[in-house]
Amino acid sequence: MRVLASELSGRAGDGGEAELRGWVHRVRELGGVSFVMLRDRSGLAQVVIEGKADLSLESVVSATGTVAENGRAPGGVELRASRIETIARAEPGLPFPVNGDPTRMGLEAVLDNRPLSLRNPRIRAIFSVQSTIIDAFGSFLRSRGFTEIKTSKLLGSGTEGGTGLFEVDYFGARAYLAQSPQFYKQTMVASGMERVFEVAPAYRAEKHDTPRHLNEYVSMDLETAFVESELELIELEKELLASVFEAVASRDAADLAAWGASVPSPESVAAAPVLGHAEALEIAAAEAARAGGAPTGGAGTRLHEISPEVERLVCAWSARERGGELVFINEFPRRHRPFYTYPLDESRTMSFDAIFRGLEITTGGRRQHDYAALLEALPRFGLRAEDLADYLAVFRYGCPPHGGFAIGLERLTQKILGLKNVKEASLFPRDRKRVRP
Amino acid sequence: MRVLASELSGRAGDGGEAELRGWVHRVRELGGVSFVMLRDRSGLAQVVIEGKADLSLESVVSATGTVAENGRAPGGVELRASRIETIARAEPGLPFPVNGDPTRMGLEAVLDNRPLSLRNPRIRAIFSVQSTIIDAFGSFLRSRGFTEIKTSKLLGSGTEGGTGLFEVDYFGARAYLAQSPQFYKQTMVASGMERVFEVAPAYRAEKHDTPRHLNEYVSMDLETAFVESELELIELEKELLASVFEAVASRDAADLAAWGASVPSPESVAAAPVLGHAEALEIAAAEAARAGGAPTGGAGTRLHEISPEVERLVCAWSARERGGELVFINEFPRRHRPFYTYPLDESRTMSFDAIFRGLEITTGGRRQHDYAALLEALPRFGLRAEDLADYLAVFRYGCPPHGGFAIGLERLTQKILGLKNVKEASLFPRDRKRVRP
Repeated sequence: MRVLASELSGRAGDGGEAELRGWVHRVRELGGVSFVMLRDRSGLAQVVIEGKADLSLESVVSATGTVAENGRAPGGVELRASRIETIARAEPGLPFPVNGDPTRMGLEAVLDNRPLSLRNPRIRAIFSVQSTIIDAFGSFLRSRGFTEIKTSKLLGSGTEGGTGLFEVDYFGARAYLAQSPQFYKQTMVASGMERVFEVAPAYRAEKHDTPRHLNEYVSMDLETAFVESELELIELEKELLASVFEAVASRDAADLAAWGASVPSPESVAAAPVLGHAEALEIAAAEAARAGGAPTGGAGTRLHEISPEVERLVCAWSARERGGELVFINEFPRRHRPFYTYPLDESRTMSFDAIFRGLEITTGGRRQHDYAALLEALPRFGLRAEDLADYLAVFRYGCPPHGGFAIGLERLTQKILGLKNVKEASLFPRDRKRVRP
Repeated sequence: MRVLASELSGRAGDGGEAELRGWVHRVRELGGVSFVMLRDRSGLAQVVIEGKADLSLESVVSATGTVAENGRAPGGVELRASRIETIARAEPGLPFPVNGDPTRMGLEAVLDNRPLSLRNPRIRAIFSVQSTIIDAFGSFLRSRGFTEIKTSKLLGSGTEGGTGLFEVDYFGARAYLAQSPQFYKQTMVASGMERVFEVAPAYRAEKHDTPRHLNEYVSMDLETAFVESELELIELEKELLASVFEAVASRDAADLAAWGASVPSPESVAAAPVLGHAEALEIAAAEAARAGGAPTGGAGTRLHEISPEVERLVCAWSARERGGELVFINEFPRRHRPFYTYPLDESRTMSFDAIFRGLEITTGGRRQHDYAALLEALPRFGLRAEDLADYLAVFRYGCPPHGGFAIGLERLTQKILGLKNVKEASLFPRDRKRVRP
């Protein structure tokens, strides 16, 4: 009867037989005895066997023996094996050192050898945390009356404007990969479902290759009815993030520890500041001056938009002044936001970003629900009503005030664990040069 | 303070004020009084107001008044409104009758007018059930130690063979939309994660337009290590489906009732027969003869594969002989299955289909985990090792025996509710002619 590595310590008293199954993570020979570190889905366990263990690294084996206490083994116990059988032999000469320190390996090597690098316990830990994030996101929203939806990722037209779209040959016609489920989640709010969420891939055919961009990412989207200010959405996101952080802290403590990471406290999330767009730029400029440097563009240059540098500066300010790692910026200028963003006044909108540990993880806001106002806004954005007929029908026939936001799954994972590059938080990342494995 | 339609009956005793917000579903005038049926995310509520209510159907309104008992209203209560305010007015002349009977409307009209047809309570009910299915699938698997993964849908090469693939222009290079996460879920099993699942879109560029096909569908996939027979997977699927059915029955009773539907009992799922491929064909032939008809191809034609007609016949047999609605067929011939299917003997495989209420909802099986055996199988399928290098690396370096299966979300939804066409179970279905809304 197989036991997991994590269950071994519970067997120490029995003195009975136990079987472990897993991957040969490391082998050490010492004084006529072999110490085999075995890896399974629950973690690592030490297996001790007499003589030389003829095992190649990464082979899958079954080890049978008795459980004994050993203060220096993981969990304080080891399996004293009478027999180790090979279930699937790995060829020797791994092209990637599975049992090494992933932070010492180049990102390209990690990604080129994805089938092997994902076996590294620290790298695998990233995706255990990610699984918890997905679950906690959905569980929180379901508890608030949200319904999970699955919408098409193949669009007949590039509705939000034609840039940054991947084109698909759809039976000889042209279609596009969805950049977001924006229009669909609004359609579902207007259907009377009112509160919806979706966790699904989103596509951006942008050419930049930076540590914060992916061409395919997982967007955790939500949209909710009867919202009249982005401040309600910010409150919702605070509660949602606190719930996600709490789930990660309680379920993935070992994975967090593997990365030397921790999550913000619920109190600090609740206290996250909300800065107006103009105020955020002022704070960033002051912060840059304080640090003795000057923002990109040279000394004296005014900051005009929320660049990656501004995101870092605002978070540095928040960390020092408020002790928090999460900042919301609202009241973005109309010219920076899509046509469906709800205006606050002539120049500003009821929209916001969430910046976590120096990186934007969310864009959201209240949406325009008024049919006449939408029609009026289109020309300003170079859009034509006839190209948006399906979308506009949503508002023509009664749509309540509403809003929503999206969280980038990989960015949130990255920032929780302190990863340098967002690609590390994608199982099989896609960038301009990479479309495999 | 807003209350939901479903909360109104709890307020009947108060005699206090209540506010409902929702969509004008129906208006009836009778004896100087207007009866307004209001729809919100929880259901319908009756609002009564003196005089003529000047409200267009589908307008979003706020109704304020006192709650009173009325045996003929939904939930036994109604709101006697002193005031109804319009929040968002719908234009009159709906292109689709939201409050009508969706089974009397043509499928094309339902799909062409998706933003409005999704407002129909019976149609919306489909997607409430679907949300429960997704949640129950994941919850069951998490309780069994599975980790949720999100894998790329953009592949650099069409690994399972080049037919039926949608082509994407990937920065000037050619990429393809994934037909399944097959290779990725196997990679994660072999990583040591052992048990993984994914709920994500899958693409088939197949030209047939039938009531059982979608070009984009949601695949609920799982894969698990240390499986040595497809019978273990069939047991797992039985428990999984029983858990999903139980969740739908307990959470969505009203939605099931709206479609006159019910789910199979846990006992009947546990007792579902497992028929060998050859046996299934014999049963189907006998069933066809018994019904006095003959399978397609004319009288006397032998049945050679599990066609849609065979699926129906086998389920008809099972319903009569065993009283069940779920049938598993295993031991599919090697020539009918992909190269990675694990052989049972020279001609048969350890693979299976699940047929529910006459429709295949699952394909699965044990996979070949032995590197040498995989290499040997490739030429028989016209495949070359060099085109599959990333995939083969998984097996070259130690992969345990494993298997898995996938459930088509829309097909399962369709069959639970008794929908005629699988497109009805997709929010925004894609077929050869339809890539909007």
